[in-house]
Amino acid sequence: MNHEVRKVLEAVKDGGMSVDEALLKIKTEPFADIGYAKVDLHRKVRQGAAEVIYGAGKTPEQISGIADTMKRNGQDVILITRLSPEKAEAVSREHEMTYYEQPGVGIMGVFPVPDGIGKIVVATGGTSDIPVAEEAALTARVLGNEVVRLYDVGVAGVHRLLAHKEEIMDASVIIAIAGMEGALASVIGGLADCPVIAVPTSVGYGASFHGLSALLSMLNSCASGVSVVNIDNGFGAGYLASMINHR
Amino acid sequence: MNHEVRKVLEAVKDGGMSVDEALLKIKTEPFADIGYAKVDLHRKVRQGAAEVIYGAGKTPEQISGIADTMKRNGQDVILITRLSPEKAEAVSREHEMTYYEQPGVGIMGVFPVPDGIGKIVVATGGTSDIPVAEEAALTARVLGNEVVRLYDVGVAGVHRLLAHKEEIMDASVIIAIAGMEGALASVIGGLADCPVIAVPTSVGYGASFHGLSALLSMLNSCASGVSVVNIDNGFGAGYLASMINHR
Amino acid sequence: MNHEVRKVLEAVKDGGMSVDEALLKIKTEPFADIGYAKVDLHRKVRQGAAEVIYGAGKTPEQISGIADTMKRNGQDVILITRLSPEKAEAVSREHEMTYYEQPGVGIMGVFPVPDGIGKIVVATGGTSDIPVAEEAALTARVLGNEVVRLYDVGVAGVHRLLAHKEEIMDASVIIAIAGMEGALASVIGGLADCPVIAVPTSVGYGASFHGLSALLSMLNSCASGVSVVNIDNGFGAGYLASMINHR
Amino acid sequence: MNHEVRKVLEAVKDGGMSVDEALLKIKTEPFADIGYAKVDLHRKVRQGAAEVIYGAGKTPEQISGIADTMKRNGQDVILITRLSPEKAEAVSREHEMTYYEQPGVGIMGVFPVPDGIGKIVVATGGTSDIPVAEEAALTARVLGNEVVRLYDVGVAGVHRLLAHKEEIMDASVIIAIAGMEGALASVIGGLADCPVIAVPTSVGYGASFHGLSALLSMLNSCASGVSVVNIDNGFGAGYLASMINHR
Amino acid sequence: MNHEVRKVLEAVKDGGMSVDEALLKIKTEPFADIGYAKVDLHRKVRQGAAEVIYGAGKTPEQISGIADTMKRNGQDVILITRLSPEKAEAVSREHEMTYYEQPGVGIMGVFPVPDGIGKIVVATGGTSDIPVAEEAALTARVLGNEVVRLYDVGVAGVHRLLAHKEEIMDASVIIAIAGMEGALASVIGGLADCPVIAVPTSVGYGASFHGLSALLSMLNSCASGVSVVNIDNGFGAGYLASMINHR
Amino acid sequence: MNHEVRKVLEAVKDGGMSVDEALLKIKTEPFADIGYAKVDLHRKVRQGAAEVIYGAGKTPEQISGIADTMKRNGQDVILITRLSPEKAEAVSREHEMTYYEQPGVGIMGVFPVPDGIGKIVVATGGTSDIPVAEEAALTARVLGNEVVRLYDVGVAGVHRLLAHKEEIMDASVIIAIAGMEGALASVIGGLADCPVIAVPTSVGYGASFHGLSALLSMLNSCASGVSVVNIDNGFGAGYLASMINHR
Amino acid sequence: MNHEVRKVLEAVKDGGMSVDEALLKIKTEPFADIGYAKVDLHRKVRQGAAEVIYGAGKTPEQISGIADTMKRNGQDVILITRLSPEKAEAVSREHEMTYYEQPGVGIMGVFPVPDGIGKIVVATGGTSDIPVAEEAALTARVLGNEVVRLYDVGVAGVHRLLAHKEEIMDASVIIAIAGMEGALASVIGGLADCPVIAVPTSVGYGASFHGLSALLSMLNSCASGVSVVNIDNGFGAGYLASMINHR
Amino acid sequence: MNHEVRKVLEAVKDGGMSVDEALLKIKTEPFADIGYAKVDLHRKVRQGAAEVIYGAGKTPEQISGIADTMKRNGQDVILITRLSPEKAEAVSREHEMTYYEQPGVGIMGVFPVPDGIGKIVVATGGTSDIPVAEEAALTARVLGNEVVRLYDVGVAGVHRLLAHKEEIMDASVIIAIAGMEGALASVIGGLADCPVIAVPTSVGYGASFHGLSALLSMLNSCASGVSVVNIDNGFGAGYLASMINHR
Repeated sequence: MNHEVRKVLEAVKDGGMSVDEALLKIKTEPFADIGYAKVDLHRKVRQGAAEVIYGAGKTPEQISGIADTMKRNGQDVILITRLSPEKAEAVSREHEMTYYEQPGVGIMGVFPVPDGIGKIVVATGGTSDIPVAEEAALTARVLGNEVVRLYDVGVAGVHRLLAHKEEIMDASVIIAIAGMEGALASVIGGLADCPVIAVPTSVGYGASFHGLSALLSMLNSCASGVSVVNIDNGFGAGYLASMINHR
Repeated sequence: MNHEVRKVLEAVKDGGMSVDEALLKIKTEPFADIGYAKVDLHRKVRQGAAEVIYGAGKTPEQISGIADTMKRNGQDVILITRLSPEKAEAVSREHEMTYYEQPGVGIMGVFPVPDGIGKIVVATGGTSDIPVAEEAALTARVLGNEVVRLYDVGVAGVHRLLAHKEEIMDASVIIAIAGMEGALASVIGGLADCPVIAVPTSVGYGASFHGLSALLSMLNSCASGVSVVNIDNGFGAGYLASMINHR
Repeated sequence: MNHEVRKVLEAVKDGGMSVDEALLKIKTEPFADIGYAKVDLHRKVRQGAAEVIYGAGKTPEQISGIADTMKRNGQDVILITRLSPEKAEAVSREHEMTYYEQPGVGIMGVFPVPDGIGKIVVATGGTSDIPVAEEAALTARVLGNEVVRLYDVGVAGVHRLLAHKEEIMDASVIIAIAGMEGALASVIGGLADCPVIAVPTSVGYGASFHGLSALLSMLNSCASGVSVVNIDNGFGAGYLASMINHR
Repeated sequence: MNHEVRKVLEAVKDGGMSVDEALLKIKTEPFADIGYAKVDLHRKVRQGAAEVIYGAGKTPEQISGIADTMKRNGQDVILITRLSPEKAEAVSREHEMTYYEQPGVGIMGVFPVPDGIGKIVVATGGTSDIPVAEEAALTARVLGNEVVRLYDVGVAGVHRLLAHKEEIMDASVIIAIAGMEGALASVIGGLADCPVIAVPTSVGYGASFHGLSALLSMLNSCASGVSVVNIDNGFGAGYLASMINHR
Repeated sequence: MNHEVRKVLEAVKDGGMSVDEALLKIKTEPFADIGYAKVDLHRKVRQGAAEVIYGAGKTPEQISGIADTMKRNGQDVILITRLSPEKAEAVSREHEMTYYEQPGVGIMGVFPVPDGIGKIVVATGGTSDIPVAEEAALTARVLGNEVVRLYDVGVAGVHRLLAHKEEIMDASVIIAIAGMEGALASVIGGLADCPVIAVPTSVGYGASFHGLSALLSMLNSCASGVSVVNIDNGFGAGYLASMINHR
Repeated sequence: MNHEVRKVLEAVKDGGMSVDEALLKIKTEPFADIGYAKVDLHRKVRQGAAEVIYGAGKTPEQISGIADTMKRNGQDVILITRLSPEKAEAVSREHEMTYYEQPGVGIMGVFPVPDGIGKIVVATGGTSDIPVAEEAALTARVLGNEVVRLYDVGVAGVHRLLAHKEEIMDASVIIAIAGMEGALASVIGGLADCPVIAVPTSVGYGASFHGLSALLSMLNSCASGVSVVNIDNGFGAGYLASMINHR
Repeated sequence: MNHEVRKVLEAVKDGGMSVDEALLKIKTEPFADIGYAKVDLHRKVRQGAAEVIYGAGKTPEQISGIADTMKRNGQDVILITRLSPEKAEAVSREHEMTYYEQPGVGIMGVFPVPDGIGKIVVATGGTSDIPVAEEAALTARVLGNEVVRLYDVGVAGVHRLLAHKEEIMDASVIIAIAGMEGALASVIGGLADCPVIAVPTSVGYGASFHGLSALLSMLNSCASGVSVVNIDNGFGAGYLASMINHR
Repeated sequence: MNHEVRKVLEAVKDGGMSVDEALLKIKTEPFADIGYAKVDLHRKVRQGAAEVIYGAGKTPEQISGIADTMKRNGQDVILITRLSPEKAEAVSREHEMTYYEQPGVGIMGVFPVPDGIGKIVVATGGTSDIPVAEEAALTARVLGNEVVRLYDVGVAGVHRLLAHKEEIMDASVIIAIAGMEGALASVIGGLADCPVIAVPTSVGYGASFHGLSALLSMLNSCASGVSVVNIDNGFGAGYLASMINHR
């Protein structure tokens, strides 16, 4: 990659490319020289210290190969999401990797020292939402954020949540994760002064309709400062939270 | 009606009708002798001191006529729901009636002295939910219940709700009314020890889909003791609350 | 737990805590001193003699451990819902437990003597609704209620239902459970004078859409005194019925 | 039309057209010679004594013109559905017509003497369903059927329905019309031994979703012999009932 | 059963029961004396020569036992629907039964001689709809009807359908079965002069949404005389067709 | 516009712009020099002789102004869609324009001589679909196509359609427009050898759900060569048909 | 308000209230002393220089009264959203106010000097989305942000968007507003390095289903850093953008 | 088949059949003489050099048999879609066949020399959409088209797409395949001057609702010249593209 970046920079220097075009080129085509695979950058994480591989739909060999290429290009920390235990085992034979089974996340390298504005709070309504929460939390940590976990603080026991009002009021960004009625985002949004990223989960049964109930609930939040990502999209929430925490 | 009831009772006395059948007969056909109209009892309110007329789809003349018949049969208090201002004005020319414009409710006679077990709390998430809440509250009062109103205590400002925890913990039944994300029912359900009747409202816009969001949210409540009635069905909630409060 | 409750009461006595706060504290955090796990109380059953563990998503070891803690805190009857046969077998090795396979319910201890106002009738439209009905019935019994079962009394043979009008008119609360067209709640609601809790089930095929048809049908019931819980939520109905039956 | 039919029959006689083709030709193109308009036959009623004009989307002039053509072709009875009061008034200036305002139906000529196998029962759950019921009843009468009306016999008061079991068991076909939870079709289907045509109506509010609730309920009927037509489609039900009653 | 029927008839003779009540009693409770099981009559087939057992959710032992009781009560032909191959094998060890694997139907006894008014045509849009069609066809045959099968005559090749216009115009009732766009019912409805029962199937993928597309299409049919049953409900269509064919 | 195009061409000649970029520039920004308004080109019709203005949401003054600019730039034929009668009248005061009220289309200039490969057939299921059909037909004519109209050839009378098989088999492209069950596209698709563009319309009531039924039906068409545009999108179909007819 | 805040601060000083509790009190109950109305703060904007009144469902008198109270409490800038022209005129008689008709926004006072980190870009897909965009833009300006408007840069003409890549890459936050297919958020998300707040609008027809299409599209964005608010919720987006821009 | 075609042609010669009828006969019943199976022609591909077998729901023996018949009738190239690896292996034992595992496509014979107007571009948003794309591409090639593949050019990295603007502007037809937000069709539609066939895929999770999100997005495309086929319907898109490319 260095080679390609060098060419871009030389073009800028020569006046053959504007600064904006150079930025765009670096941003959108960082891996044009990788041979046997077009690396799926899982929505192109370029902000922090880590790179991301979206594990679903890739063979262990492909994942290993992409990781090799990343490492050769100087990447120290690599995040792999949606990684099944079977694939994780296979990848582990080739690379040193810490595997988190519940969220299906593998991490090569060590978490960088947090360099964000403040802390990212990751809160869940129930224990069943934790896998999604961990995907968010690990994504945030790997991108250089300090993370505070508040799990099982659902609104049916609002005092459990209020017991943590200090963490909530102190947060830089909050990720509120809940299935079923998805009310957590509104209650937290009413307590907090920072952006709240709501993640509906597919936890529930019957009229939860695989997350639709929580999704609609969160979109209709009467609290300000709340926005929503896709059902079960822990990675997306962690990524956006890091973006906001690095303004 | 007296005449018909008398006949039923004589049949019971003569052994020509069982007690159960007599009860059922009295319950299901109390107005068989009314000539020009089959009185729509709006789901047959027989429990308290009041009778109910469902105003939608009836002419002022029909409403007046039905009220006449009710009064002749010894009915002191009559509740009319879904009554438009125009119809209310026409009916008022024939009958002394207090009209509540916001919920579209007319009441003939005075509220009975409450004789329930305890108090019914009627809570709303926002001010726009008040018309539905008033339909519920007036229904409950007319059926002989003491009503406590907690309006605009939505979950986005959970401390407004907590400021009323005494009323909530003291209630015999709670009616939780909310549109948008409908989270009020869950938070109240987590605080209270009594049955909570959740009423989703059509308040909101966009992804509230005319109350669907609040409805799903309430059906998925993670708090125990919560059940749900139809969107905007204040009458149904007030009626059921009265039933529970008169166990 | 005694220890913690004692501390709360002493605080009340000293004036350091109001009565309301004490009630709330006792209600919302009864198990703060349990070490290795945050006990999922399955919506905090504190009303009757029993405690509840929501079995889905817990390992047999966790269930056993939570039950141990409950017992040490003086709990005589413990209800475990959504418990698979495999987990039931494992738990049974550690604890004496009666297991009901169809509804997936395990019970430690004996049913308490009923102390409610009257009887809870549990009615189903068909035989396929029985697992949900048994979850409701066992929940109600474990919480101290007398239960009358009326199974397979669906509206397509309305005389089967009418044959039981005595039980229906005599009930304190009725739980009406049905899939497909879900009409049972309306017909029972028209016969009964007590609250009816409607439970839609996912029984059916095609346009039943996994319980949506029964759910909508029940929400639109033209009978008064009917409210609805989530699809297949037998526990929620049994819990709410017990609450109403213990007013 | 006589001219064209004559040509077809001559072709059959000459062997130039098969009997089936002749039937088909007569059936599908009875009005090919009408000049200024392709007559919308509202689903081509050819079975009974009447012809049908679907009034929605036609001007009074067009309706009058089509009726003229029909009369010139020997048609004695003409049914016009979905006819607004304004158009009815205009058409009445040109033609003698009885207008039924509630269902929006106009009829030219007199009802034929019934010649079906038996009686068609038209039943409704509530009074608001009557306009749809009358469209069905008038369609059936105009096509030569005896009609028995059972209105406001909804399932929330099942004894009102049972009071009419004689009519129900005696019917040749039953049209069951209901909005809200739509349970009427199932209860009648369980009582009757004849085909039941279920018509969901858009009567209701909130979670009735403009008739969707009743529609799904009727499609999932657990009673045999029940089939369903479109929401508010009284004409379709009356037409089909007549077909079955003239087997 | 004879014994119970005798008691009913004697009551009628004695004046202790009206004729209607007697009919109703015979109709709705024919199996009150069966001990160990409440026989699921699969929507009570009493019209023809056969009785029906709904196989889904019953053990082979239960099916065998119910069949035993039916036979002892003089039943010659028994139809078992939704019967898996495994259950069929087990039942076959106890009873002589012909098993049709594709539609999952078992039949004990022989098809009765058809005694309906005319022929029932069973038509499908594609070959994948045949299992549903066979459930309908076998139901109709077992209830005493002559059945004509027109399979794979979907509207995308409308001449395949027109090649059979003789059978279509000759039918007493037509069952039109189709998935995907479900247009078959409309085209047949336009050709035929008899009632058309439309059965949407779950055949298709993507935007067929498990039969929803075909269901909506059939409900909106612009042809008269078409009504609809639940998705994949071959039995219901066959039963209703037989009812109409035996007017 | 000439001025701007000239600049582009000069840049190409000078080597300052590639041919592709020039094409793209001409295509995407033809009206950059219009002062007071960014002309909404209604999806930029550049293929034929005409330009298009999407009338909805524009004032008559804006429409007139845009038309002025177009004319000054040498545009002879201008199509205005979704134009209400009121706006049409106002625009007509400034410009000579033929207005078609039913589809809400205004045309300035004369239809060009058709120069496509063959004929475009526009077919509708019913008469209510004609406004959408005319939007399609006028769009196609204005873009230089010969159009054959086949209106009211719905599948419930399939012989009406077959009477036109010559036109269908002769077509270059067919636009099949239908509401309700939307089956027309499949039947035509099965007869024709050319691309069929299906346009669902919002014609219908009840379970047509404002065009959803026809939309799903058309997407699931079992005929090959059929694709679908948005509900009521006559313009889109006419535009695409012209594109295909000018290959 | 000053008075109440003073009391809170004194309590903090005296040790009678913790800092957190004081913050929460100030945050959640700033207007407890207003007599005749509970001020609807439209999701309590406390972050910037402005206060907000949600105009829908309030009378002009109420709006004026609330504004009076705000001004007396030292509020310089007041934003009123969802304000109809009629109400605006009435309010203008009492207060000096700039009214923006298209988005229905009224502003008392002058825009504060921007004090955010960077610029907020507000982009729309089409011109019909501008009212929602202006609600967002005016909200952001009133809360102290510099706003860059990029209107009508929809993805069907992607070069119009690319022409502004400098503004996009330079933004601190981007609000992407689009109806119909809602693809703008994804394309911008792929170009930008900052958080993108997606606002689906109800612009469109047919299968846009009042914004559902754009909503789902935005929730499924394959670009990272994108989150979504409710349909047409310009205020919510502007508020959240300001929050992020003031980190 | 030759035999049957000969008979048709002789009938035409003799004047016993019109040319149109002959064409229709040849088109709709080419395989009437095949004995043991009615060949599913997968929507009758008659245009190019190849014939198609729809593999889903057929046994390997049936597929082989149909292929035999086709070959005997002179068919050189045969396309088999939706063919699982297991069936492919079985079929390969009888016939020489190239099997493409990812799209589940088998091809007997060699690709014909392309004879279309121009090139068909097949573009996908992501790598997960490739199986659907390959079904489209292979269908197009087998029908005699030159195919250009542009995979993984999703809109979140719009420069990847713009890098291929030459291929896009040069295409005769473009097939745009995408799941999730489905925006690819709009962006390509804005760049291209040729018809764009949009194929939504079921790729995605959560609020993608199995392709519904992409489907709605594509139907609402604001670009002209875009039409849509069913979710995952690669074959349909390839077939239609070939039709357009052979105008």
